[in-house]
Amino acid sequence: MVNPTTMPEQVREPPGSVSIKDVARIAGVSIATVSRFINDPERVKEQTRTRVQAAIAQTGYSPNTLAQSFRRGKTHLIMVVLPSVGDPFFTGVMSGIRSVAGGRGYSLLINETQFNTMTADEIGAMVVSRQADGIVLLASLSPFGNEVLSAHSHRTLPIVIGCETVSPELANFPGVHIDNSAAAQEATDYLLALGHRKIAFIYGQQQSLLTSDREQGYRASMHKAGISVRESWVVEGKLTMEGAIAATRILLGHADRPTAIFCANDEMALGCIYAVKSAGLRVPEDVSVVGFDDIRYARICDPALTTVYQPAEEIGEKVMNRLLDEIEGGRSGSAGAEIVAHKLVVRKSAAPPSV
Amino acid sequence: MVNPTTMPEQVREPPGSVSIKDVARIAGVSIATVSRFINDPERVKEQTRTRVQAAIAQTGYSPNTLAQSFRRGKTHLIMVVLPSVGDPFFTGVMSGIRSVAGGRGYSLLINETQFNTMTADEIGAMVVSRQADGIVLLASLSPFGNEVLSAHSHRTLPIVIGCETVSPELANFPGVHIDNSAAAQEATDYLLALGHRKIAFIYGQQQSLLTSDREQGYRASMHKAGISVRESWVVEGKLTMEGAIAATRILLGHADRPTAIFCANDEMALGCIYAVKSAGLRVPEDVSVVGFDDIRYARICDPALTTVYQPAEEIGEKVMNRLLDEIEGGRSGSAGAEIVAHKLVVRKSAAPPSV
Repeated sequence: MVNPTTMPEQVREPPGSVSIKDVARIAGVSIATVSRFINDPERVKEQTRTRVQAAIAQTGYSPNTLAQSFRRGKTHLIMVVLPSVGDPFFTGVMSGIRSVAGGRGYSLLINETQFNTMTADEIGAMVVSRQADGIVLLASLSPFGNEVLSAHSHRTLPIVIGCETVSPELANFPGVHIDNSAAAQEATDYLLALGHRKIAFIYGQQQSLLTSDREQGYRASMHKAGISVRESWVVEGKLTMEGAIAATRILLGHADRPTAIFCANDEMALGCIYAVKSAGLRVPEDVSVVGFDDIRYARICDPALTTVYQPAEEIGEKVMNRLLDEIEGGRSGSAGAEIVAHKLVVRKSAAPPSV
Repeated sequence: MVNPTTMPEQVREPPGSVSIKDVARIAGVSIATVSRFINDPERVKEQTRTRVQAAIAQTGYSPNTLAQSFRRGKTHLIMVVLPSVGDPFFTGVMSGIRSVAGGRGYSLLINETQFNTMTADEIGAMVVSRQADGIVLLASLSPFGNEVLSAHSHRTLPIVIGCETVSPELANFPGVHIDNSAAAQEATDYLLALGHRKIAFIYGQQQSLLTSDREQGYRASMHKAGISVRESWVVEGKLTMEGAIAATRILLGHADRPTAIFCANDEMALGCIYAVKSAGLRVPEDVSVVGFDDIRYARICDPALTTVYQPAEEIGEKVMNRLLDEIEGGRSGSAGAEIVAHKLVVRKSAAPPSV
């Protein structure tokens, strides 16, 4: 890392360039006011803002935040790695992350793993290159990505893991999430209690640890009830609506079709309900459907979706507070995950089997 | 702006720090390979990556991207300003933006205006502080935000506006979007052609130019048909599901209720359908509902939503290509907006009025 003291003074005000003093003079305000305009414009009266802004436009002054970040070795940026912008589950998580980050003076650099150039592997490079003060990891990484991060620990860059279950390699990083396995077990127990025996499971992606934990919960519940899981009833839904529609069509094509389908997320449950209804069957009379996440569409879909609620906003807040405590306090990361409470939300998409 | 040549050589390799040569020596690879690992890891074989990664972990080497950005005056970051992460309309737009940015070697810094500390006003500060090479603006700004940007033009930072209609202050910036007014007129014409006369409109937010253009299209269509718009049938839905549920309850509460409701986005149309059904009425038999955007939930909702399709991915690609052409070519921004084609998608949520 570059020692900030090696930065020469002239970088602060390169020869011939416009200084903050010029802006203050032209706007007829103090240097402190110009600085406040740049760093916290809402604290500057609108009339003054207009004057300062005009002076900045007139002079072409640049506060050069990059140079500032470089000098103090702080970017005040937190990188959030999530699977996809546009996934409604992240509305709540991001809301929690935002409110804490904003309140503590940080901005967010959001990276999507799904259709991103920055693949999970490249996080290793981000980790060592100090493009952010810390990382919130909301997405699964490739085995290589896990390996890269686990080699670094908190020595190089603070990382907190949210939502996703922690892979064994990342057990030394702090995390905040629900008990995915217990939650999935509870949802399956609920279907069993309604009288279902033929319960199918649509999982996400084979490489995602998150849905494998949910699958484990489903299997544990079935095992406990003395029902052997038919492997042809455990189908990949790719975490997408389209994937779940295809998966549901496969399940409904079996001669002996399931009476209930448990989906590893709500996005897939919405696709599943659509596919069941498109096949001329009723939800829940012919096929019960249960989801996972409680996204905002769960309560307005028809029938309203029975699902597992995750406290998304709380997860976002806890993850960000934990990360910033570490960055600001310079503490070595407290290892291991904090488990937050989930809740089964019973609505209308599951009922006793009609047969 | 800082002249890169004022940066002294020792910043490149501060005394006593680990150099890229040390990493290469320990990993037993060339310096070029280490550089490739940092900048484009997918071009490095997995076996080699593991070796380089281990050498980086062992030495604690930091490529110090911030210092590099500072030197060349390029961050290779594009700031995308959007209303909300978790809004499904942006899945497509972001996908297009991503694929172009990635292919051309840029990463994205995503900022949400909705629940962000960085309010629209603060974009002015971002513009002059060179925290990114350019800005993609997908959200409405406050009047002050518009004013700040319009004072800068392309002189300070390249900006391309996507999706949102351009406010008069920003007419000097390039943009890519559909003709919102014409599209809304077409959707209203369709309801009129089905025989509806009592057509209500749920708009987004009063300060958003985007929904005001859609409202204008609705009013133009009604005017052309010789039907005067009842002002009590034009209601604010806040662009959210919850807002639209409340708005629909108001509309259905009128003694003489509308036979059709046109919503300024799909998110609100989904809330509207839910509210109509919750009131014990049928869609489309009792009330027709038409949306705007064609988000992925439009085709699976019950009944499937008739809506206006926006070519989200194409908008994302065009916006990003236009921005990067400007950044890389150093061209002065071509003014004005490029209009892309919309399409009315007829599904099942609108039908002739039963009365």
